[in-house]
This record gives sequence, structure tokens and C-alpha cells, in this order.
Amino acid sequence: MNQSTDRNAVVLLSGGLDSATVLAIANERGFHCHALSVDYGQRHRSELQAAQNVAEKMSATLKTIKLDLRKFGGSALTDDIDVPEEEGEGIPVTYVPARNTIMLSLALAWAEVLGADDIFIGVNAVDYSGYPDCRPEFINAYEEMANLATKAGVVGNRMTIHTPLIDLSKADIIRQGTELGVDYGMTISCYQADDEGRACGVCDSCRIRAAGFEAAGVSDPTRYKS
Amino acid sequence: MNQSTDRNAVVLLSGGLDSATVLAIANERGFHCHALSVDYGQRHRSELQAAQNVAEKMSATLKTIKLDLRKFGGSALTDDIDVPEEEGEGIPVTYVPARNTIMLSLALAWAEVLGADDIFIGVNAVDYSGYPDCRPEFINAYEEMANLATKAGVVGNRMTIHTPLIDLSKADIIRQGTELGVDYGMTISCYQADDEGRACGVCDSCRIRAAGFEAAGVSDPTRYKS
Repeated sequence: MNQSTDRNAVVLLSGGLDSATVLAIANERGFHCHALSVDYGQRHRSELQAAQNVAEKMSATLKTIKLDLRKFGGSALTDDIDVPEEEGEGIPVTYVPARNTIMLSLALAWAEVLGADDIFIGVNAVDYSGYPDCRPEFINAYEEMANLATKAGVVGNRMTIHTPLIDLSKADIIRQGTELGVDYGMTISCYQADDEGRACGVCDSCRIRAAGFEAAGVSDPTRYKS
Repeated sequence: MNQSTDRNAVVLLSGGLDSATVLAIANERGFHCHALSVDYGQRHRSELQAAQNVAEKMSATLKTIKLDLRKFGGSALTDDIDVPEEEGEGIPVTYVPARNTIMLSLALAWAEVLGADDIFIGVNAVDYSGYPDCRPEFINAYEEMANLATKAGVVGNRMTIHTPLIDLSKADIIRQGTELGVDYGMTISCYQADDEGRACGVCDSCRIRAAGFEAAGVSDPTRYKS
């Protein structure tokens, strides 16, 4: 798996289960990892602390960028809209408009400054809650655009958006991360985790995560509120 | 020119000459304009005040979003690098990595929340200083990506990135804006304008702007430092 050495990569790190696994994969592939966490005004503030803990554990440089997406609102994560506690139809209200586009654009900026050609993001098209910006066709279009947006498009190197989880089930992600030594007890997936990082157990993200641990046959280290 | 009514549009407004012209064009086309200004830590702080003045004059709603791109650096506008005062070769050091990608992504987020399908940006492929993210192929790729990134890609409406200046010379832009009543005395193009908004007269942006007024045969209202 050691596909690259001495190459810088920017890894988007939310503090959740998926992005922690992605960081472990990028490390395993031999990249020198620069983790990027975005404080966008998310309801679940404790994930920012989780991102710091995960980056430190995995010896990645971390930058946290502040960007107040509450100024736009329009999502249960960034506006005064309740997080749903039952499964619904269509695109859920926890979808944050253009979030992955914005995150990737910040990663692209940092990558260009670092001279890195590689960006990692933990999107997943299987257990993905129906968000449009988690689909492979979005990632492919983003990569094309990124290669025209930057010096890469002028001087001839090529930016790659790596999505190592895109085709995996949550159980497969957990199995792979467990093999790589990821401590999932440090990660927070819950959309309404409390300040101590304890999960609600009932939001979409909690339900998908808990089912993933069960299907993987891995004991669930999540701390729940009750 | 009145191509649309009762349609919301997001217009990226920097406070410079180009984006003020774009706002006038979007108004003229009948869009209800929501101007977006980004405080990215730019050296030329007075352009933020110029954006406010221009938006107010043209009766557009304005949101200013803070995003500290100085955390990444890598540009004379966001790092401790001098702004060049003579013409150079290649991509200039005033290029801010991924800036237009980031700006468009913030505009996309706001557009999605507003239910707007139209985004305006004042990029220009003629007098454009050699920035990769001002080329038509970048804009086309961005539009494709945007339509996969958002609900638009799922529910069937279509996002359009409007670049009404892309093929115009600076002189043509100034002529068109002057016809539409843009007060260019309110705009700031200089990369190192002082706190009172007075221009240096020697940076790339000042040189291109001054030559534009001269070629357009329009008297230059820019206030210079000396």
C-alpha cells in the first residue's frame, strides 16, 4: 500500500469516523499528511476537538479554518432547524449547501500553496444520507475543475482528489480503519453531540454509524448521552 | 437586456471595477441581486468598504463573509510578499491560490439556500494578469461541477455561472459600466490601496485600470496616493 513517499497531501478531517479512516489510509500510502478542519459554525462543535485529537494521534499537521456558514443557514447543522431523529425521504435537512465544494476548495488552496497534488476526502456513496456532493460524478467533475482552476492547469502537474471510501459500506470502512489502528473512540459522528462529545444515538449519522459497527462485528466505542 | 424578472442572483462583489460593472449588468438584466463580498484577509482592506458602498448605491443586499486565507498564504495579497510594481512573466505573485474557486463555492452555497440558479462573477480573460482561474475553460468546468454538487443536480434545475465580462477589454468594461451609470470613483482596484482607498498607481491592477480608462476615453476618477 506504500504507493508514495515524500509527497504532501491535504486531508479533509472533520473529526468523524470516515475522515479519521481516510487520514489513516493516506498515512499508510506514504503521504506526508496536512489535515484541514473547517469550523463552519456546525451545531456539533465537539467534532472540532475530535479532529484535533485524531490529527495529533496520527501525527498530522492540522490547520483549522473558520468560515461562518451560519451566515447562509439553510441546514439543520447551520441554522435553527431541528436535526431529524427518524429516517426521512429525499435530501435530508442536515445537508449543508455546497459544503463539500467549499471544503475541497479550501483544501485546493492549501494544496496549491504546499505544492501538493493530492487531496483526500472521506465521501461515501453507499451510506451517504442522500447528499448530492458525495456522489462519484461530483468528485470527478470537481477534479476536472481543480485542474483548470490552479497553476496545475498551466504548468502541467495534475491534482488528484482521492476518495478511498467512496464505494465502501460503513462496515467495510470500520473494518479497514480498525486494521490500520484507528481509535474510533476519539471520533464523533453525531450531528448533535454534546460538549463532552457524547452522541445522541438517534440522528441519521448515529444510526448509520451504530449499524456499521454491528455489521462489522466491531465493538462500538461511541459514548452516548444516555 | 431585461432578460429576467423576479429571479434571485448571487453576485460576487469585490469592490473593484469589474465586479461593480457585473452588478450593474445583473441589475439591468432584471435579477434581484444578492451581493457577496469575502473578507479573506486581503492586503487591500479598503476594497471591502468599497464593496459596501457599491452594493448600497446599487440597492443590492450584501453579505460579507470572513475567511482567513492568510492561514494558507502563498500570495502577495495574503502573505508577507511584496506586490510587484513592474510587469513580470508567468503567473504573478498576486495570484491567490484557488481564490475564484473558493469565492464561487461560497456564492454557490448562498445561491442554493436562496433557491437562486444564477451566479455572476467578474472574471475577464483579456486583461486578466495571467490567473488560471479567470479562463473560460475554468468557468465551464466549474458550472458542470456546480450542477452535480447541489440539489440542482438532483431536482433538475440548472445553475448558471454568468461571466458577462469574460471577453471584454478593460476599456469595453468601462464603457459598458459608464453607460449603466456605474460610479467608478467608488471602486478600488489597487492591490495595495491605503486605508482611505487611495491607489498606488504602479501595481498590475492599477496599470491595467488606468490604461482602460485611457483607451475608453473616459476620465479616470481614481484617487492616487501621490
